[in-house]
Amino acid sequence: MFLSEFIPVKDALEIIDNVKIKLDTEKISLKEAYNRVLAEDIKALLDSPSFDKSAMDGYAVKAEDTFGLSETNTSHLKVVDRIGAGDTSNVALKHGEAIKIATGAPIPEGANAVIMEEYTYEKNDNLEVLKTLFPGENVAPFGEDFKRGDELLKSGKLLRPQDIGIIASAGYDTIDVYKTPKIGVITTGNELVMSISEIKGAKIINSNYYTLKALVESTLSVPEVTHCVDDAEKVKEQIEKFLESCDAIITTGGTAISKGDVVVDVVDEMGEVLIHGAAIRPGKPFGFGVINGTPVFMLSGYPVASIVQFDVFTRNYLLKMQNIHKEFPIIKKTASRKIASTLGRTDYVRAKTNGNYVCPLKIDGSGIIRSMVESDCYILIEENVEGINEGEDCDVLIYDSLKV
Amino acid sequence: MFLSEFIPVKDALEIIDNVKIKLDTEKISLKEAYNRVLAEDIKALLDSPSFDKSAMDGYAVKAEDTFGLSETNTSHLKVVDRIGAGDTSNVALKHGEAIKIATGAPIPEGANAVIMEEYTYEKNDNLEVLKTLFPGENVAPFGEDFKRGDELLKSGKLLRPQDIGIIASAGYDTIDVYKTPKIGVITTGNELVMSISEIKGAKIINSNYYTLKALVESTLSVPEVTHCVDDAEKVKEQIEKFLESCDAIITTGGTAISKGDVVVDVVDEMGEVLIHGAAIRPGKPFGFGVINGTPVFMLSGYPVASIVQFDVFTRNYLLKMQNIHKEFPIIKKTASRKIASTLGRTDYVRAKTNGNYVCPLKIDGSGIIRSMVESDCYILIEENVEGINEGEDCDVLIYDSLKV
Repeated sequence: MFLSEFIPVKDALEIIDNVKIKLDTEKISLKEAYNRVLAEDIKALLDSPSFDKSAMDGYAVKAEDTFGLSETNTSHLKVVDRIGAGDTSNVALKHGEAIKIATGAPIPEGANAVIMEEYTYEKNDNLEVLKTLFPGENVAPFGEDFKRGDELLKSGKLLRPQDIGIIASAGYDTIDVYKTPKIGVITTGNELVMSISEIKGAKIINSNYYTLKALVESTLSVPEVTHCVDDAEKVKEQIEKFLESCDAIITTGGTAISKGDVVVDVVDEMGEVLIHGAAIRPGKPFGFGVINGTPVFMLSGYPVASIVQFDVFTRNYLLKMQNIHKEFPIIKKTASRKIASTLGRTDYVRAKTNGNYVCPLKIDGSGIIRSMVESDCYILIEENVEGINEGEDCDVLIYDSLKV
Repeated sequence: MFLSEFIPVKDALEIIDNVKIKLDTEKISLKEAYNRVLAEDIKALLDSPSFDKSAMDGYAVKAEDTFGLSETNTSHLKVVDRIGAGDTSNVALKHGEAIKIATGAPIPEGANAVIMEEYTYEKNDNLEVLKTLFPGENVAPFGEDFKRGDELLKSGKLLRPQDIGIIASAGYDTIDVYKTPKIGVITTGNELVMSISEIKGAKIINSNYYTLKALVESTLSVPEVTHCVDDAEKVKEQIEKFLESCDAIITTGGTAISKGDVVVDVVDEMGEVLIHGAAIRPGKPFGFGVINGTPVFMLSGYPVASIVQFDVFTRNYLLKMQNIHKEFPIIKKTASRKIASTLGRTDYVRAKTNGNYVCPLKIDGSGIIRSMVESDCYILIEENVEGINEGEDCDVLIYDSLKV
């Protein structure tokens, strides 16, 4: 009675992956670049440093003037100039001379090393030197970090603070990044209200509104969430609105087969339903369709089922829409009790890790959101596995590792 | 010549930890709760579900009426009412009767099980039943998820999508959370300019402005960044401004001992400098002080040093200001080449992981930001360790695991 067979998770993911993503880019200030994805290769526009630079506060000298010196065999140089940070000196250093220099200032002509203040005593431009320097000591040479034209970062990089730092150093104050996708979320269900004050009779609170908004935010995408009653015309109107303003649409509810379940029918009418029913537990009533190139993820109305469906089918797609390609790490833990499973479907068992062990929660059921709250990971049981024995290793996906 | 000895990292962290944090809270809409930290215990304001509820689309029946039934031994019931989502029925079910029911609707009086549509044929209110049900089958009983008064979440929880979902289900649409701290960042240095167009002579780009903004954002805190020349009065004025509007202050540059290095002196004059110089590499010229209870993290002007100092000394403090208590996981990897280190200081060696191996980068120096960009982790070498041999296990801190 579903529009398609319950298809295996792998096949469903392949169908979803085949829906082409159009990547849009935009130019932004580098100040707003944290957690954005670079959409251009960054080549240095300048050399860094662009001059031989002092790496210390001290005195620029000719290293040869210090050969053999030590605390018990000192020598004296004449201080002929002083260079502050951001300043330069016009004085060319000669043998027997020193120029006081700040960290970051350019090494003056004729000098080839910097002696730290700690190894000197200065009195009235007379500098006592207590240490031997090698040529180049405490000098950051021209182009040491990078040279003009060096490729520093490639398009597709999710920007960390240090990446933003090097882009700034390389001479950029704006960059091209992939646009943050806008995701239209439609919760459906006549039984749903937004707050406790509206509850009467068989009404319940629309927790999916809140959960889905946060789920979309956790992918760095921008959600626009709205609620709709179980009415085909109203659902259609809302989808039409989102088709204009959003890059993808997510619905909750209305994915089963009874009369009130209108979402799949509406999407089928407006475009093409490619998946209806997946071999997954929880989350069997999952739908996926495309309307004019826009993907529509039809999630269950059940709170737990919708989260699992989002994590399995939707999360990665929203990341790819920003050109983020993330593999969620599956790790091995030992089952601390037996876990039943049925052949022919992939189980996402809510569980809690404890060191190298993992324990499935006793509370189950796709309506029991407490099972998602009290757990910290999924145990994945593939469709060809009938269950896991106590003490057996199993595949675990930690919720925190789903974060970008 | 530093105001204090180079103190060990552990001692520095203890001094920083001892500066008392005043945790402020605020009430926000639950819609804005993702990645915020709960500042109240959440007790359910209602029962969930608040009635015995159908877990399926199907027909509510008395289970006893189906005992012994199968596809080859069917029986017939009379459909006496229909309940949509969000609706209720006033009909009390009698033996021989069924009531059509939507997922989520309340089980009508007299019924104790729901048969899925898939196991029935209906024609003109005449329902053929093909399956035996047990009492309670496909019924989500009253209070199954939680009961009114149940404690669902504790204050201090960093909110995930599912946590927000259960808070909504529990009847809340606003919650108390810890305030997001506002962090004033002052970059200092006469040599710094904001963009390539301003470069002349010994000027360089103020990459710390961009990096520090992103570092603060990576802790979920709100940065306000400004630049200041190396002038004691100007630095003092800016610190005074931030003391009024910010919860903590970070500076870069001016932490060494030469004449132009004014930051530590200014903080010493305005409040108390508790740390000046830490036994860490890179990052030795680290300062920490307190002015009227507000912590001031004085980071190096060197790009790499300032990032390391932020990660080691500042990051956790900013998290604690939101009541986030995170332990950054130190993992073991095998060194793929020898790493030199000096006794008496903690080294944070920029390195790259490769499976179970980790390789220190050949480029070094606290000015070479490329070393932070091309690496994905620190190798930590404690102060009492002289170096690590090829093939030896070492402590690794993955940059990505620093994220909240």
